[in-house]
Amino acid sequence: MIIDLRSDTVTQPTPAMREAMFTAPLGDDVLGDDPSVNALEAKAASLFGMEAALFCTSGTMTNQLAIRTHCRPGDDVICDYLSHVYQYEGGGISVNALASASLAHGLRGKLTPDLVRDHIYSPADPHKPLSRLVVLENTVNKGGGCYYTIPEIAAIRHVCDEHGLLLHLDGARLFNALVETGEPTEAYGQLFDSISICLSKGLGCPVGSLLLGKADFIWQARRYRKLMGGGWRQAGFLAAAGSYALDHHIGRLKQDHARARQIGAMLKGRPEVEEIYPIDTNIVIFRLPETLLASDYVQKLETVGIRGITFGKHLVRFVTHLDFTDEQLEKFDQILNRD
Amino acid sequence: MIIDLRSDTVTQPTPAMREAMFTAPLGDDVLGDDPSVNALEAKAASLFGMEAALFCTSGTMTNQLAIRTHCRPGDDVICDYLSHVYQYEGGGISVNALASASLAHGLRGKLTPDLVRDHIYSPADPHKPLSRLVVLENTVNKGGGCYYTIPEIAAIRHVCDEHGLLLHLDGARLFNALVETGEPTEAYGQLFDSISICLSKGLGCPVGSLLLGKADFIWQARRYRKLMGGGWRQAGFLAAAGSYALDHHIGRLKQDHARARQIGAMLKGRPEVEEIYPIDTNIVIFRLPETLLASDYVQKLETVGIRGITFGKHLVRFVTHLDFTDEQLEKFDQILNRD
Amino acid sequence: MIIDLRSDTVTQPTPAMREAMFTAPLGDDVLGDDPSVNALEAKAASLFGMEAALFCTSGTMTNQLAIRTHCRPGDDVICDYLSHVYQYEGGGISVNALASASLAHGLRGKLTPDLVRDHIYSPADPHKPLSRLVVLENTVNKGGGCYYTIPEIAAIRHVCDEHGLLLHLDGARLFNALVETGEPTEAYGQLFDSISICLSKGLGCPVGSLLLGKADFIWQARRYRKLMGGGWRQAGFLAAAGSYALDHHIGRLKQDHARARQIGAMLKGRPEVEEIYPIDTNIVIFRLPETLLASDYVQKLETVGIRGITFGKHLVRFVTHLDFTDEQLEKFDQILNRD
Amino acid sequence: MIIDLRSDTVTQPTPAMREAMFTAPLGDDVLGDDPSVNALEAKAASLFGMEAALFCTSGTMTNQLAIRTHCRPGDDVICDYLSHVYQYEGGGISVNALASASLAHGLRGKLTPDLVRDHIYSPADPHKPLSRLVVLENTVNKGGGCYYTIPEIAAIRHVCDEHGLLLHLDGARLFNALVETGEPTEAYGQLFDSISICLSKGLGCPVGSLLLGKADFIWQARRYRKLMGGGWRQAGFLAAAGSYALDHHIGRLKQDHARARQIGAMLKGRPEVEEIYPIDTNIVIFRLPETLLASDYVQKLETVGIRGITFGKHLVRFVTHLDFTDEQLEKFDQILNRD
Repeated sequence: MIIDLRSDTVTQPTPAMREAMFTAPLGDDVLGDDPSVNALEAKAASLFGMEAALFCTSGTMTNQLAIRTHCRPGDDVICDYLSHVYQYEGGGISVNALASASLAHGLRGKLTPDLVRDHIYSPADPHKPLSRLVVLENTVNKGGGCYYTIPEIAAIRHVCDEHGLLLHLDGARLFNALVETGEPTEAYGQLFDSISICLSKGLGCPVGSLLLGKADFIWQARRYRKLMGGGWRQAGFLAAAGSYALDHHIGRLKQDHARARQIGAMLKGRPEVEEIYPIDTNIVIFRLPETLLASDYVQKLETVGIRGITFGKHLVRFVTHLDFTDEQLEKFDQILNRD
Repeated sequence: MIIDLRSDTVTQPTPAMREAMFTAPLGDDVLGDDPSVNALEAKAASLFGMEAALFCTSGTMTNQLAIRTHCRPGDDVICDYLSHVYQYEGGGISVNALASASLAHGLRGKLTPDLVRDHIYSPADPHKPLSRLVVLENTVNKGGGCYYTIPEIAAIRHVCDEHGLLLHLDGARLFNALVETGEPTEAYGQLFDSISICLSKGLGCPVGSLLLGKADFIWQARRYRKLMGGGWRQAGFLAAAGSYALDHHIGRLKQDHARARQIGAMLKGRPEVEEIYPIDTNIVIFRLPETLLASDYVQKLETVGIRGITFGKHLVRFVTHLDFTDEQLEKFDQILNRD
Repeated sequence: MIIDLRSDTVTQPTPAMREAMFTAPLGDDVLGDDPSVNALEAKAASLFGMEAALFCTSGTMTNQLAIRTHCRPGDDVICDYLSHVYQYEGGGISVNALASASLAHGLRGKLTPDLVRDHIYSPADPHKPLSRLVVLENTVNKGGGCYYTIPEIAAIRHVCDEHGLLLHLDGARLFNALVETGEPTEAYGQLFDSISICLSKGLGCPVGSLLLGKADFIWQARRYRKLMGGGWRQAGFLAAAGSYALDHHIGRLKQDHARARQIGAMLKGRPEVEEIYPIDTNIVIFRLPETLLASDYVQKLETVGIRGITFGKHLVRFVTHLDFTDEQLEKFDQILNRD
Repeated sequence: MIIDLRSDTVTQPTPAMREAMFTAPLGDDVLGDDPSVNALEAKAASLFGMEAALFCTSGTMTNQLAIRTHCRPGDDVICDYLSHVYQYEGGGISVNALASASLAHGLRGKLTPDLVRDHIYSPADPHKPLSRLVVLENTVNKGGGCYYTIPEIAAIRHVCDEHGLLLHLDGARLFNALVETGEPTEAYGQLFDSISICLSKGLGCPVGSLLLGKADFIWQARRYRKLMGGGWRQAGFLAAAGSYALDHHIGRLKQDHARARQIGAMLKGRPEVEEIYPIDTNIVIFRLPETLLASDYVQKLETVGIRGITFGKHLVRFVTHLDFTDEQLEKFDQILNRD
């Protein structure tokens, strides 16, 4: 048995989810005919009180569609240096949207009203790109799974409104935040111009993300999806998994968080662990000493049956998820102690 | 019963294909771990004698990845005015590759060596984009499913070699051509720099296309796929359908062709049919009189249980496929005659 | 003496224009300080009854700035196949604006309301780019200098209004049209969303073109000019030439037209001249027999002191201009007859 | 008399430079015919031991042409956060080259081998753009005119060679560095893949910059210049100014440096001056107290006849130049002391 904590994307669909997938009604989504896709899009839009949704292959696609739909070439995106849209989307802000990125350095990757304000360019200065969009990530992956509360977001929204900026949420792990804060999804719909939700992380789907927003925004995003080939035919298999996950896999995220904290407790005090980031949701990040490369450490872990990933020269990340059980947690402890 | 001849993309997976999907081993393809995806990519590359393959959501994605990987901004793509890459990919040549299109007007959408030669710009003239890539489509959708033979392609390849041009094949319906000509797939691998193969048309898969080429080309295409969000996690479900289709659904395309010709015979002589394009594979295109709009005709057909699509102001297209049976063909005839 | 009829861009500033240039007050135009640039921009905007103007290095720059400012990536530009923006701007529509071009085939490069209408895509179809902009060229270079009248343009404007399209004028040789029609410049300002005027063709300036439009459009164009490096410092030298030309060089264009017609008369009946395009302004295009390549003919002319350019495999173009005098015209005749 | 220290771009051509401009032979540079442009390009290329040169309107244009010619969409540019290409070119790295920027935070804007190394992405990771190009600025404007020595550059070149990276120099004020170090221009040509030289800053020309590099690189840059409209016709007026400046205005830069240091001495100890950056060439940057906004201070200076610009919330910049004389320096001192 390999304990795979590389990411919450590695999960396999449960038997019940598979059942939902293989009994799903199908159609040609490019022609607008797939009932399972249409149902998922309607369900998600309704959940967040937004007008429309678009079902796509990945969170990178929904984020990048949002950015290119909101921005024109020469615009500027304000985000944290640690944010996924800057760190892990292959330079897509430049390639897909021809936009620049102004990078804030927040605490654990979280923006604040002041940080946003400091990164707004004067629209009168043609030497600078034009500030157009602010992107928040919730929870913040590179920040160790920390999250925003609604009052924090509302304060940033206020700055956006003052300066005519749009606000996008990279909610790849939004439900991990929501089960902790207990905040309602509808409130999110009112704060953002667009939201990206990932179904293939904590929610356990094989493939898929959703982009939410106003109807005309989603229509324009659908156009961009088409021209780069993101339209898919009988995607209802995957959409049915998404609907199932929204119905059955949100509440259980608390278990992932509890197990992440238990991992933290197991790591604490170990000689190779210099510092553990606060564990707020399902992500555990810890720092090794200067003398130990994360790549070496991760490779060694692999040989004893534990998979994690490097998250910097001396940083290691574990992510808990649907396929990580109490049995695996106990095994994890045994391996660590044996080690 | 509705007889859906809008496209060969409307098919639903057969029970046997579903079984293959159900039982497919899965992994995280973004991390390179999905065995079913890896198996499909290896099978397809080997089939055409090419180094590598990339499994994507759509033929538009594989075509557009090919174009943007082969071209730099300011390059020019030579293709027929009727080609899918120009007509149906949302202007992606410009948006994805920042390339121009030089449009030939061939017979039923087929390029010839002379047409290619006539559209090559002098590389010494900075007023012009730089000719870089020739795109063939086989079979030609807008040409009514007509196809190229290998000697025809070899002659175009020769012109490309003389002028240092690359050659891409949009093989959305390549197997429809191959079952007619009896030509081997390996010969195709030697003639093209890249090939796009669609699994969700005649081959009957729910979702998916393959891009084939040299290893470094595919690696660069994989990078571009990532930054626009085309990477997918447990795509093995869909890949397993693809492998099944390559094993079991190629030979049967001949039946689709036979039924298409039978449809042609049924249409022949009808008062509203002015002209029927030659029927070479699974596509039937016919022209209505000047007084009858294709959109009106298609709408009327819909009310009697037959679906087709408009293909011009007075052109209608039917496409036969896996879900179009002899029983439906008979019914089609009855409806037409009753009508 | 070489008679240079390659283009009206080859002219050298007259002594009076030089005097205007070298006494011009200068400043740093990037900082908005150059009085000669500001004066030229104000003069040109006022002449056409438009809000603002931008002085740039070339007509390609003003055209391309207009296209990229009017369009978003994925939009479509309707223009004639012969138009300069498609034929001679290096594929800039794709590279600068990430827009596609829908090419009409009008008579001598002129669009009509019906041609425009036929090239508008349905905005409901995501397979197609989004029709956004129509570009007219007046006079039409590749059409042999033919021109539009205001009623012709107004009819096209009407189609644009019906479909929410913008209308740009490539007026590289607009004044050549206006001296023939006698129409007022102000009428043009009301018909177009933007106008490009070239100062370095018939008007005889060394360098420079003007883009005209609404104030916010010009501001956005100025931003794009800046980011690609089109801002220039003490450009007042060149702007002063432009102001001089607008004051003194418009009326005299009639002489160029008369001399062009005289060249036509001289060519008529010569054995190597198969057909002469109608000569409406300062451009003479004629066709050679199939057995004579334009490139060979132009090379031969060069050896006897006459310069023209090839304008197709068997087409040759001459352009009359400020530096082409009656003396040169007579010499031209002698050389032809001696030849 | 206004003492204009906003930038060294504000200078006006001297009588001798005007004479050179006046008498310059001209041609149509788009057709390759302008002898003064050709002479300047040859002179500059030879000066740096490079194969070819391209005369353009601005340093932004030459920098952006270099970046887009070296990079493909999805590539990454390593530069300092303070560099002109990132700070003052309107987000052009994204818009012109579709490239990302990895921003180092060096001392006064200078990169080091370690900083470059730390910003190189693994080419095996498709989540990241592909590191392609390093850009140095010499002297560093935002760093207060500090400069690199050749051994410093050679060490960075070494890192580039190890990782297959290209190296571009933004040499807007390169001659200001060279007159201090006494290093030969030819050495620069061997260290860089491309060099941008500005003629309209310390060298005193009205308009113009040069891009230097290998012949095929310059040819590709010329193509890109054409498609965005940077080609210009009788640019020989401006090129003649450039040749004059290269012959006569380099040595005198030392006077600008001396006067900058004298300004520094005058500022030192004044109550509103908290810190003065080291003055290495012709740029003086100083910091005001937290209670005094640079914008207010600059406005107040303007009322007493001195112009500078804000360079941050509490930073002010003065630049000495050809038109800033000893008489003005004395006046500057009087005004400050009176103030």
